Amino acid sequence: MIDTVHVIGSGRVGSAVTARLCERGVAVGVDGGDLVLLCVPDGAIAAVASSIPRGPWVAHVSGATSLAALAPHEKRFSLHPLQTFTRDRGPEQLDGSWAAVTSGSEEARAVALWLAETLGLRPFDLADDARTLYHAGAVFASNYVVTLQRAAALLFEAAGAPPEALVPLMLRTIENRFELTGPIARGDWQTVDAHLVAIREQLPQLEHLYETLAGATLAIAT
Amino acid sequence: MIDTVHVIGSGRVGSAVTARLCERGVAVGVDGGDLVLLCVPDGAIAAVASSIPRGPWVAHVSGATSLAALAPHEKRFSLHPLQTFTRDRGPEQLDGSWAAVTSGSEEARAVALWLAETLGLRPFDLADDARTLYHAGAVFASNYVVTLQRAAALLFEAAGAPPEALVPLMLRTIENRFELTGPIARGDWQTVDAHLVAIREQLPQLEHLYETLAGATLAIAT
Repeated sequence: MIDTVHVIGSGRVGSAVTARLCERGVAVGVDGGDLVLLCVPDGAIAAVASSIPRGPWVAHVSGATSLAALAPHEKRFSLHPLQTFTRDRGPEQLDGSWAAVTSGSEEARAVALWLAETLGLRPFDLADDARTLYHAGAVFASNYVVTLQRAAALLFEAAGAPPEALVPLMLRTIENRFELTGPIARGDWQTVDAHLVAIREQLPQLEHLYETLAGATLAIAT
Repeated sequence: MIDTVHVIGSGRVGSAVTARLCERGVAVGVDGGDLVLLCVPDGAIAAVASSIPRGPWVAHVSGATSLAALAPHEKRFSLHPLQTFTRDRGPEQLDGSWAAVTSGSEEARAVALWLAETLGLRPFDLADDARTLYHAGAVFASNYVVTLQRAAALLFEAAGAPPEALVPLMLRTIENRFELTGPIARGDWQTVDAHLVAIREQLPQLEHLYETLAGATLAIAT
């Protein structure tokens, strides 16, 4: 279906994608390929897309960006790997990750599914007008997990406890399929109030965060 | 050092602890043991402790509760497994988990370390007056991870994306040592604002949570 892919961009995602395509024997980095894959910053997608002569398939890997940014191309789709990437690792970062496919036609979807399979991703369909909501969900599941760890580590450091001890707790919480335990699950508001008093005294910058999360936990997680 | 342990309580923690002590050949459930281990709700610790005749070691496994709740006993300590427990699993839940040891004497600390080792836990010392701050940190790292997943799953469901796709993303975020990626790390506030608009329109109950976490991410995680 696709013999050559021209990957534009060598950031976190572009590097992993290029390495994986090479592993799979797909010719990459060729001007005038069958597919031009934009792995550039979201804000640059429209400008780069409009500079590409019409003819090949054109796609982006952004979570937040509409297909409209790929105008004037009509042979277009998006494949967003639902994963956080680091420069310290290679194409194995793609293995088993899910990926959102947005496409306007069956033909575009077929190319997107070929690309997902070639990269080692597990694809699912995502409507173009649902991308923003989807991407906000991904922020909760990745970026805000970082924020929780930083907050917890600040509290542990202040308490003289080792922050690395948080990791098995976080992993088990996921492994246990997000079963809620702890004071809020028990309705133990005395403990929650004691936490707030201690945070206010020693790390007041975390008070609003703790309180907002406690309210949200009661509302959506109990 | 300790031959018999009387475990009081058969909840999530008490069940796992009892099963592990049995596996290790420690006699359990014996009135008048060398150590009485209270695995009861936080609010019941003081009442149960005061009902125990003086003599044996008395300890609790609560994260939030001061040693003072074990009065009038002076041979006392606390060992809090820093873990979330489910009834669906057994004593292997203890393996590799960290645990906070709070003790008022070297002798008490030695008994606590024996218990930690016997249970398969990795102990660290925690001052009695730092317990509340420490426990608040544990809430961030476990209970609030549940809350983030619920929020993300609500957004994914509204977007028509599969919530199970969030799991590899959350795990990799931890595996990558909490390296922050995504719009806030890039300073891409246009995307953050677009998320807020979409959330306000479709899941307004998550707007305050998203916004508070965005502010906290900027403050403590960038």
